[in-house]
Amino acid sequence: MSLLVQKFGGTSVADVDRIKKVARRIKRTVKQGHQVVAVVSARAGVTNNLISRAAAITKSPDPREMDVLMSTGEQETIALLSMTLQSIGVPAVSLTGPRFGIRTDNEHTRARIREMGGSDARRYLRQGKVVVVAGFQGLSEFGEITTFGRGGSDLSAIAVAGALKAHRCQIFTDVEGVYTADPRIVPNAHKLSELSYEEMLELASSGSKVMQTRAVGFAQKHEVAFEVRSSFNSKPGTIVKKSASSLEAVSVSGVAIDKNQVRISVQELPDRPGAAAAVFKAMAEIGVVVDLIVQNVGRAGKANLTFSVPSEDAYRAEKAMREAVGRTGATVGRSNKIAKVSVVGVGMRSHSGVASCFFDALAEAGINMLMISTSEIKISVAVNHEDGDEATRVAHAAFGLEKKTRSRKKATARASRSKSKG
Amino acid sequence: MSLLVQKFGGTSVADVDRIKKVARRIKRTVKQGHQVVAVVSARAGVTNNLISRAAAITKSPDPREMDVLMSTGEQETIALLSMTLQSIGVPAVSLTGPRFGIRTDNEHTRARIREMGGSDARRYLRQGKVVVVAGFQGLSEFGEITTFGRGGSDLSAIAVAGALKAHRCQIFTDVEGVYTADPRIVPNAHKLSELSYEEMLELASSGSKVMQTRAVGFAQKHEVAFEVRSSFNSKPGTIVKKSASSLEAVSVSGVAIDKNQVRISVQELPDRPGAAAAVFKAMAEIGVVVDLIVQNVGRAGKANLTFSVPSEDAYRAEKAMREAVGRTGATVGRSNKIAKVSVVGVGMRSHSGVASCFFDALAEAGINMLMISTSEIKISVAVNHEDGDEATRVAHAAFGLEKKTRSRKKATARASRSKSKG
Repeated sequence: MSLLVQKFGGTSVADVDRIKKVARRIKRTVKQGHQVVAVVSARAGVTNNLISRAAAITKSPDPREMDVLMSTGEQETIALLSMTLQSIGVPAVSLTGPRFGIRTDNEHTRARIREMGGSDARRYLRQGKVVVVAGFQGLSEFGEITTFGRGGSDLSAIAVAGALKAHRCQIFTDVEGVYTADPRIVPNAHKLSELSYEEMLELASSGSKVMQTRAVGFAQKHEVAFEVRSSFNSKPGTIVKKSASSLEAVSVSGVAIDKNQVRISVQELPDRPGAAAAVFKAMAEIGVVVDLIVQNVGRAGKANLTFSVPSEDAYRAEKAMREAVGRTGATVGRSNKIAKVSVVGVGMRSHSGVASCFFDALAEAGINMLMISTSEIKISVAVNHEDGDEATRVAHAAFGLEKKTRSRKKATARASRSKSKG
Repeated sequence: MSLLVQKFGGTSVADVDRIKKVARRIKRTVKQGHQVVAVVSARAGVTNNLISRAAAITKSPDPREMDVLMSTGEQETIALLSMTLQSIGVPAVSLTGPRFGIRTDNEHTRARIREMGGSDARRYLRQGKVVVVAGFQGLSEFGEITTFGRGGSDLSAIAVAGALKAHRCQIFTDVEGVYTADPRIVPNAHKLSELSYEEMLELASSGSKVMQTRAVGFAQKHEVAFEVRSSFNSKPGTIVKKSASSLEAVSVSGVAIDKNQVRISVQELPDRPGAAAAVFKAMAEIGVVVDLIVQNVGRAGKANLTFSVPSEDAYRAEKAMREAVGRTGATVGRSNKIAKVSVVGVGMRSHSGVASCFFDALAEAGINMLMISTSEIKISVAVNHEDGDEATRVAHAAFGLEKKTRSRKKATARASRSKSKG
C-alpha cells in the first residue's frame, strides 16, 4: 500500500458535478489499494469573485485581510469534496492548510513555507480515511492565515507529499502531461514520460504554463517526485523527478514558446559600472519581471541594452525606463510583441552543438533572431511574433522530437561536439 | 471611553454597499469616543447557497464538514468589513471565531460555548483598532471548527460582550426594538425602552422573533446587557437587562402572537402514570418541539391530552402519535392552524388578576379560548387562527399598552388582586 497525493485544480472542482467526478477518481485509487491525500484549489471563479469584491471596496486591501478572505475559497472545496467522498462510501476528512500544519513566514498573500506538520493527517490515514487538504494556504508565525499566491495549490500538494513521504504526488491538470512542444503549434509533438526538475523549470519559465515555477523549485529542493497528468482520463502523464542517468542521453527534451513578450531597448547607455544595474533596479521597483537580457557594446563607450518584459507590463516598463535613463542621452524604444522560443534539455550540459543546430534550423527557415540568451540547460531565441510558431516547429523537427525513441538518437547525433557548457 | 459590541446580521452586510454603510456607522461610533468590536454574520444568501451546494451532494452531510463549509460565510464578511473600515481610515483587524478564542463543545452544527478567550482582541483594542469578529463559529476541544446553528451570531455577540466586559452589546436588526405587540397587527403598539431577560425570553418563544432564545438565555446567565435597535437609523432601541425595580410596577410588557401552530389532541388516553410521558417521548424522538400542553381528566379514568406543535411538524407529529398510542383505544386528532396569543410581563409575579383581565377581554370580544397555559411571567391562550389578530388587539388594549405611561397605571389598576402567582 502506497500513499498518493492527488492535486485537483479549480477547474476540476468547479461545481458539484465535477467534484463528484473527482471523488469517483479518488475512490478508484483507494480501491486499487492506495492511501490518498487530496489537495484542492478553490472552485473555478470563486477566487476571482472574492478578489473583485475586495476591489469594489479598496484599491489596496490589507494583505492580512486578503488572506482571511481568499482562504475561504479552498475551505469551501475541502468540505464539499469530503462530503462527496463520504456520500459514495469513502471515509474522508478535511483539513485546512493551518489545520494540516503548514507553517509559513509572515508575508501575507505570498507566504513561503517554513515548516510542515502532518501528524493529524497521518493519524487519519492510519484510520483508513482519505484526507482532503486545502491548497494555497498556511499559518504564519503569528497564528494568522496566510496564502501562497496564485498557483499555490501546486506548492501545497508538493509540500504535503514531501511531509508525508508520499510515494508520488499527482498533479491533475487539463493537459495530459508535458509535451516536447505545444501540440497546437507542433501537431506531432509528443508527451514526455519523464523529465528532470531542471528541465521542467526551464519549460515552465519559457511559456509552458503547466505548473508554477515555485512548486517545481520546491519539489526539486526537497526531491519530491511528481506526475503531471490529465484529469479527463486515466493515461499516465509525465513524471518529473531528479534527473536519472537515462535522461542524460537526451540533449533536448522540448521546445517552449512564449508569445507574450515585448522588447525594450536602451540605445547609447553610458558604458560605465552601475548603468545597467540602474536600469534593472528601475524595473524591480515597479515590479516588472525582466526575462531575456542582451547587452552589446555600441559606439564610443556607449552600450546598447535590450531586454524583454511581459507585454502587459511593456508600457509601464518603457515609461519607467525613460525616467531612469533621464538626461544620460540614452534613447528608449519599445517593440511590438515578440515571441521567445526556447529549447530545453538536461543533455545540453554534456552534449554541445545544440545551439548551432538550433540556429542553423532557424536560418534555413529564413527566421531572423532578435535576441539570444542561454542557460545551463536552455537556449532561448527571440523572434518576430509572426515567426514564433514556425520557429517552434522548425526547432522541434531539428531535434527530432516528433517521435520519442527517434528523438533521443537523432538529437544526440545532430548535436555536434563543438560546444561544451560544462 | 467605553467598549461597545455591535452585531450586524446577514441583511446588514448583504453586499459591498451595505458593508460600507455598516463601516460608516462603526466609524461614527469610534468618533464618539468608543472602542468597538463588530460581530458579523455571513452575507444574506451566502449560508443558504452553501447549504444548497451540500444538499446537492448528500442528504445527510457530515456535521464536521458542514461546519468547515458554513464557517466560510462569516469569514468572508469579517475580511470585507475590515478592509472597508481601513479604506475609510479606521484601523481594523478581523478575527475568526476560533481566532478570537471562542471554545465550544464538540457538537458540530449546534455547538455550545464552553469558554471565551479574547486576549488578542483586547490587545488590538488597546492598539486603537476596531476588532471584527466572525459570528456563529468557534473551536471545539479537538481543535475543529464548530458552528452554533441558525441565529448563532447573536449568541457570539453576547458572549464576546461578556468576555470583554463591554459596556453594552448592540444588536442591529430590521426592527427598531421590542414592541408591546406586532405593529402590523396592533397599530398603536409602542416600542419598549427597557425589558428584563425573562420578558424577552417569553416574548421570543411566543412568536416575537427579534432574537434567538438561546442568545437571550446566555445574556441572562452571564448578565450581559444588550440593546435591540434598528440598522436603518440612529434611534435608541430596547435595552434588555436584569429586571430593575422600576420594571416591577408594570404587570404586562407586551403581547405576542404565534400563528403557526397546530393542535394535536389525544382523547381517552388511559389515565395511568407514564401514559403522558410516552406521548412526549414520541415527540422528542422525532425532534418535534411541543409548545402548549393541556390535560383534562375525561370519563372513566381516561385522560384527554391536547398540545400544540409548529404547523410544519403537524403531520409527522400526528403520525407518530397514532403509533405511540397504538392499541390503547385512544383516538388522535389534528386541528387546522391555530393562533397562540401570549401576554408577558415580569409584573405578573406580584400583580395578580392578569389572567382574569385577559380572559374577560377575550370573552367580551366573543373570542373562544381553545387552550390555556401559564408560566411565571406569561399567560398564553390558543384561539382559532382567524381570531388571533383580534385577540392580540383586545389584549393590548385591555392592558393599556397603547401608551407607555398610561399602560403601567391602567394595567396595574385593572389587574384585580384575586390571583397570586408568587
